[in-house]
Amino acid sequence: MNQTDNAAVSAHLSHVRIVMVNTTLPANIGSALRAMKTMGLSKLVLVAPKTYPHPDINALAAGAVDLIDQIEIVESLEDAIKDCHIVFGTSARSRTIPWPLLDARPAAEMSLKAVCEQQQEIAVVFGREDRGLTNEELAMANYHVTIPVNTEYGVLNVAQAIQVICYEMRMAALALTELTANPDANMHVTDDIDMEWDEPLVTHEMMEQFYPHIEKMLAEIEFMDPKNPRLLPLRLRRLFGRIQLDRMEYHLLRGIFSRVQALNNGTWKKSTDNEDQSNA
Amino acid sequence: MNQTDNAAVSAHLSHVRIVMVNTTLPANIGSALRAMKTMGLSKLVLVAPKTYPHPDINALAAGAVDLIDQIEIVESLEDAIKDCHIVFGTSARSRTIPWPLLDARPAAEMSLKAVCEQQQEIAVVFGREDRGLTNEELAMANYHVTIPVNTEYGVLNVAQAIQVICYEMRMAALALTELTANPDANMHVTDDIDMEWDEPLVTHEMMEQFYPHIEKMLAEIEFMDPKNPRLLPLRLRRLFGRIQLDRMEYHLLRGIFSRVQALNNGTWKKSTDNEDQSNA
Repeated sequence: MNQTDNAAVSAHLSHVRIVMVNTTLPANIGSALRAMKTMGLSKLVLVAPKTYPHPDINALAAGAVDLIDQIEIVESLEDAIKDCHIVFGTSARSRTIPWPLLDARPAAEMSLKAVCEQQQEIAVVFGREDRGLTNEELAMANYHVTIPVNTEYGVLNVAQAIQVICYEMRMAALALTELTANPDANMHVTDDIDMEWDEPLVTHEMMEQFYPHIEKMLAEIEFMDPKNPRLLPLRLRRLFGRIQLDRMEYHLLRGIFSRVQALNNGTWKKSTDNEDQSNA
Repeated sequence: MNQTDNAAVSAHLSHVRIVMVNTTLPANIGSALRAMKTMGLSKLVLVAPKTYPHPDINALAAGAVDLIDQIEIVESLEDAIKDCHIVFGTSARSRTIPWPLLDARPAAEMSLKAVCEQQQEIAVVFGREDRGLTNEELAMANYHVTIPVNTEYGVLNVAQAIQVICYEMRMAALALTELTANPDANMHVTDDIDMEWDEPLVTHEMMEQFYPHIEKMLAEIEFMDPKNPRLLPLRLRRLFGRIQLDRMEYHLLRGIFSRVQALNNGTWKKSTDNEDQSNA
């Protein structure tokens, strides 16, 4: 991804804040900052942290110290989210109050759409290490968001949860940035596998010269009977058809075919052939 | 999600192994196990770990101790992946060798499709904390996989990277399980790599006999200089590594190599050679 895209993605993500309520372990705050910066988020709001500041925060934040300076400390969740348009409360699926519940991915997609289309401010609120968010705090959220985990072992700690949420926020921001750059592209990055290539891929037209070449070579060395090739040509097409050769590979393979042909019809002699001839 | 679905998802994910090469910090192994179990993965293979066993592993693995008993320790990456069909090497975008590169999401979708449709075995290989995987190790992979991070600060540690990969593997497994349960469900699992196979696909171990064969053949016809093969062996691995040959194609290609070798060393004579000789 180029720098412009990265800047655009970070600009979108600057509207998404992470809120941590009554966090006990400074290490979790440091890990949160690192997770955020890795994914391009920058705004962390701490609601009445138990221990702040603390060296463990800087230690685990590693290269994300610039985010420490931007940390906002507030007294109540109310203060942390008052200027936000959409507030997500993170919650395990077992909750005492019913609420609109979203998985992390659709929640991130909804968030970045709201950011891009209406410059909305988004907050994702994480609770205490031991008992999460209170019902009062959960009730302040527009939606509850959950990460679909192994239901037999659902212990994602707060730092891991923030990592996953920030990752989904970035993926949604990337998808939208791609969409803006190329309006025909589908919203979901997942809708196509895009591989990165250093070399241009061959065209269908080039492959239409490739198949006759390999078939001619195989006929010349009598590996294939041109009068009765059976399924061989079809199998070669299936094999090389799905590989999507790049130009370098295409010329490499055709070079090999030509060498075999030259070897076969005697127009190319091995450096050792002289001795071979004398033995004959 | 009900228990049946969770069991089905875990069953799919049992075919996806995490491989950690020369890991230095036991804490990272413990965090990896926790990340895996949270997402429903169960198989961790350690290639020559620097410190094992170690109390930090159990400490950070928390409730995932059952996975510790299932850990497999091997001496070489080769041993870790020999029965795998698709091997992903994790890599930063800056690489000295070009290779088919996928983001974590499409890589996970490709993996779970391969598991569900062809019961394939998948490996995701993670390198050393300090310098990742060597070029030799990266060349053993069919694909390289990367997590799209903030390009100005791309420091995801190995435990965080495993967390994200395992999360995407679970999301892909959930999508496929939902699809099976409800075929009309709108889902994002790509169909671009839809492969209907009549033949079983080759294993990594079989391919380790394939590459020496094609290289020997190319050396014999002096297309490649064994003393100075330059990038050719690497390019052959990249090309045939991503094609995922089935057994029929594998034997077809090796049959062609053998024919060229026999033609070259004179152990096989063309049916038309008699006339050719008389002309000589």
